[in-house]
Amino acid sequence: MSSHFAPTPHHDGSPLYVSTPAPALGDTVRVRVRVPEAFGPVLAVHTRSNPDREPRYAVATPVANVDGWEWWEAELQVENPVHGYRFLLSLADGSNVWLNATGLHRIETLDSEDFRIVAYPAAPDWAANAVMYQIFPDRFARSAAADARQPPEWAVPAGWSDEVVNVGPDTPRQFYGGDLAGIAEHLDHLVRLGVNLIYLTPVFPAQSNHRYDAQSFARVDPLLGGDEALAALVAAAHERGLRVIGDLTSNHSGDAHEWFRASHRTPGAPESEFYYWLDEAQERYVSWLGVPSLPKFNWNSDELRRRFIDGEGSVVAKWLKPPYSLDGWRIDVSNMTGRYLDEDLNEVVRRTARRTMLEANPDTILLGESTNDAASDFPGDAWHGAMTYANFTRPVWGWLSEPGRPAPGGIGMALGTIPSYSGEEVYAAHVRFTAAFPWRVRLHNMNALDTHDTPRFLTHARPGTVPVAFGLAVTLPGIPVVFAGDEFGLTGSDGEHSRTPIPWDSVDAAESTIDLYSRLIHLRTGHPALNSGGIRWLHAGTEVLVFVREAAEESVLVVAARGDFSVTLDPHAFAGNPVTLFGEVGAVLSPQGWTLSGSGPSFGAFALPGIALPHFADPGAVLALE
Amino acid sequence: MSSHFAPTPHHDGSPLYVSTPAPALGDTVRVRVRVPEAFGPVLAVHTRSNPDREPRYAVATPVANVDGWEWWEAELQVENPVHGYRFLLSLADGSNVWLNATGLHRIETLDSEDFRIVAYPAAPDWAANAVMYQIFPDRFARSAAADARQPPEWAVPAGWSDEVVNVGPDTPRQFYGGDLAGIAEHLDHLVRLGVNLIYLTPVFPAQSNHRYDAQSFARVDPLLGGDEALAALVAAAHERGLRVIGDLTSNHSGDAHEWFRASHRTPGAPESEFYYWLDEAQERYVSWLGVPSLPKFNWNSDELRRRFIDGEGSVVAKWLKPPYSLDGWRIDVSNMTGRYLDEDLNEVVRRTARRTMLEANPDTILLGESTNDAASDFPGDAWHGAMTYANFTRPVWGWLSEPGRPAPGGIGMALGTIPSYSGEEVYAAHVRFTAAFPWRVRLHNMNALDTHDTPRFLTHARPGTVPVAFGLAVTLPGIPVVFAGDEFGLTGSDGEHSRTPIPWDSVDAAESTIDLYSRLIHLRTGHPALNSGGIRWLHAGTEVLVFVREAAEESVLVVAARGDFSVTLDPHAFAGNPVTLFGEVGAVLSPQGWTLSGSGPSFGAFALPGIALPHFADPGAVLALE
Repeated sequence: MSSHFAPTPHHDGSPLYVSTPAPALGDTVRVRVRVPEAFGPVLAVHTRSNPDREPRYAVATPVANVDGWEWWEAELQVENPVHGYRFLLSLADGSNVWLNATGLHRIETLDSEDFRIVAYPAAPDWAANAVMYQIFPDRFARSAAADARQPPEWAVPAGWSDEVVNVGPDTPRQFYGGDLAGIAEHLDHLVRLGVNLIYLTPVFPAQSNHRYDAQSFARVDPLLGGDEALAALVAAAHERGLRVIGDLTSNHSGDAHEWFRASHRTPGAPESEFYYWLDEAQERYVSWLGVPSLPKFNWNSDELRRRFIDGEGSVVAKWLKPPYSLDGWRIDVSNMTGRYLDEDLNEVVRRTARRTMLEANPDTILLGESTNDAASDFPGDAWHGAMTYANFTRPVWGWLSEPGRPAPGGIGMALGTIPSYSGEEVYAAHVRFTAAFPWRVRLHNMNALDTHDTPRFLTHARPGTVPVAFGLAVTLPGIPVVFAGDEFGLTGSDGEHSRTPIPWDSVDAAESTIDLYSRLIHLRTGHPALNSGGIRWLHAGTEVLVFVREAAEESVLVVAARGDFSVTLDPHAFAGNPVTLFGEVGAVLSPQGWTLSGSGPSFGAFALPGIALPHFADPGAVLALE
Repeated sequence: MSSHFAPTPHHDGSPLYVSTPAPALGDTVRVRVRVPEAFGPVLAVHTRSNPDREPRYAVATPVANVDGWEWWEAELQVENPVHGYRFLLSLADGSNVWLNATGLHRIETLDSEDFRIVAYPAAPDWAANAVMYQIFPDRFARSAAADARQPPEWAVPAGWSDEVVNVGPDTPRQFYGGDLAGIAEHLDHLVRLGVNLIYLTPVFPAQSNHRYDAQSFARVDPLLGGDEALAALVAAAHERGLRVIGDLTSNHSGDAHEWFRASHRTPGAPESEFYYWLDEAQERYVSWLGVPSLPKFNWNSDELRRRFIDGEGSVVAKWLKPPYSLDGWRIDVSNMTGRYLDEDLNEVVRRTARRTMLEANPDTILLGESTNDAASDFPGDAWHGAMTYANFTRPVWGWLSEPGRPAPGGIGMALGTIPSYSGEEVYAAHVRFTAAFPWRVRLHNMNALDTHDTPRFLTHARPGTVPVAFGLAVTLPGIPVVFAGDEFGLTGSDGEHSRTPIPWDSVDAAESTIDLYSRLIHLRTGHPALNSGGIRWLHAGTEVLVFVREAAEESVLVVAARGDFSVTLDPHAFAGNPVTLFGEVGAVLSPQGWTLSGSGPSFGAFALPGIALPHFADPGAVLALE
């Protein structure tokens, strides 16, 4: 792979290149590709669509010539709900080159790397503008009311400053007693940070501190304050402009779940069809990775669907409606949901859940957990985005952590060890694992440095790289995620150990880290190009990555470096004069182009205001051809 | 891409590497990977499976050390009908590398490039040993009985030596009157060639010479001799050890089809649900690429399924049973079948058809036409192989044809023009477009240089390259295909023009070409490693490709060159002394390894007999570790 990118023909699904972000089936959509003059003469441009998996070509015509780039446009009719397309550029030497979501190719390309236009209902507009704050309720904050509650039998009560237990049987039982009212008391902290979307891990009654082993989906855990506390928290958050999503386990329940209790060892019970039994007595059953406390749902059951995901009376619908009014769901283990042996009901489960959400409260989002190669389950039909670690989390760790350190568990490092990635490899992995997502899904994938299932990033970070890592989280396409406590500089060696109680007494000591997070979050929320603008990579070197997020109004140049660097970009890499928005990266213009430089780990962002990029919304901005 | 391959860790789905070619769901299968000593020390090997899309690792252990290669083995439980897996090799420097169906990778890899074990019912054993001969009945041979038949009204009768019309309205009407008895009269020619599987394009009544616009699937066209002639042809073929498959159009019928006539403009007719109507009067309808004579089937109809593909009374079943006893089906336009707007019934159609075949006559094969990136429809659930041009046909043309020549129509060249490929690009395209097929499907993909839908290969071939091209067809994994007439040295400028009547009077003049085809076909059928042996690429250069097909009993070294070449392979590239089987490629041993050389276009094959490769069937052949 070349680490230095001459400008090359470019397209992505962003508004500069696609006229209609949310078309209906059958609509005609205009798509554009831009070709740099330095690429050499392009004699013709075609689109290749693949309706019903049979190729169809359309001719593009030049529509603008701006700043050394020629823009071509073609019309596509959206013939399937996921309409794949690529570009074919005919060169002066008689050869043709393909442009798809992984770049330019002389040889033919795979359908899975096509660009995609999606005709399924789109996510609400606010989703692409979201900055997420993930809260693990037992560990976030404890209201005064919590003191009056009796811990459950299974719990091992802990004081707020006790060390987290991450080994042995007490791990899921250690109970700090955080509650929803505690969260509501700290919303000002979230407002200061600048986040606008809270993701609550499960709030239903369970027999563990993580509550992924639900006993019921019908009520909020009284230990958290019950249904009223959830309604109050969401109302308080909404008052401050914060949205809140919940967490559902569609793959399994807990073995103490009312549905499981009704059917376990009880042949004939109506809920029997909700699970996979391994004997007629309904004694043994299929469970998540063989863990007996997490019996796996059997989605062949219409009654399970009706109770859980299908229609106004379902769990999925209930909590999105007043008085709770959650703004969506994150779905746990969505990758395994509905899959067992030769059955695969994943598609019907996710589509049914989303249809129910559209009926109950359409202004909501649906995210699915799929921590590896996720794209094939995310064509835009149901999940709006993925909680995935393959395209962002693991590559960034590989680049910015001390390699060889242990990273056990849910983060999915091979053999539980952090690999050593160059910047080129971060780029390659990011492209590889995002190419098959429709653009609109990429905008809603979670850019999480860590979560409740992983070690915390800081634990093994190379010195000084937190701004680089979180800087990438807020500038790459996707929803930036703060796992509560990262802004306090917390560490944690694995998923359990990372579930640290938030040290509210240490706000002052953490002031500089909180300020760093807040400034980067406001960088994101203050510049729409970082929400939904296109992305062009300008450089990928061992120590430094450079890209630009582009929108018609303003573009943002982003520089992320692990060590000392000096990079001179092609004169046509971008137009306009960079204005520093964040960081201390140098930018000097010479006849050779802009030279970007810095020492040590650094993260820089620059505005490129007032660039004349042609766009669909304002025909006047499309300049005449020379 | 490196053009010179040092030996690297290797696995494919062949019997050297997978203990159980056709496991049942839940079975335990042993898989092996071989690692060359020159690769450096490997400290550990793991498999990574992906059951229910959740990764699972298993430890491999060394089981043999042979000829500079260490063999490792792990056990996999087949948890889904398509069980994806890859290997992770831990190196002495602390890093890990992945091995998947596209090769070695330092960064994480896509699920779509995993190796695959398939638990669906397998194809019959004879399928991987097949060499196919494609016959277009109107143009193959005319029996005496044909003279007595009256051409139909639509036909424009032609004399056997008339030029083929390939432009204008007479193209589908030009009628030469070949028939099934004519084919039966020439089976000796096929026996001499050495082919063992006849593929007949459609034999049902229609209103064109190609018969892809069926009027009925209930009877064989009387112009071909009717039902009895088909039964007689298959019986005569079977007597000679030749199998015969037919051709069905599952995407559409003709507009003169009895089902269409019963329902067109006839609301309320039982067959109304067989098609997609665009108005209530059932006047307008959806058709293949908008061609009115080919109305598209609506596979939502259970009655259509019952009549056509589902169960003993269906069309699919009828012709596989006595007295017809066809040995399988090739399905036309399988890629578009069941796909329309937001409907996708492709999977249920193909699985239903295959289930019916298993009931009616399990010793049959099912091939699907999907001429581009086909693999996602070919997980091994139904189609045994693809009639596809992406992994073989187009790359070989790109390498061995005069570039820039026109290749219009069904062969699918971008903009109808032959590209210019290097040998490296042939290799890259072949790997790219085969990686996502399970191994067993790769063995049944059609290696066709041309078909009734394409120009003939010879038309634009560089001088002397036919042995190279057809040599690759018989040695790369897949079913070699001879489109009838290629062995006579026929040319044709497009799919229609290629449908040349066979010049039986010219057998003597074509003697050398027929002999060439026969020798290459017998090369294939005489060496089991070429049917189902593994494939390792040893070299890919601009002018020459080298690979080895490996089985426990014997391996075959293959050299295909476009021009002069001399290549010295690594000493551990293969073991044993090459014995020439075909061609005039030089092979000289020096301390540096074997040097292969030749001048001009050349194709060579060498036996590597008696190599000691460890294999599962004979534990005695697994040597002890040092």
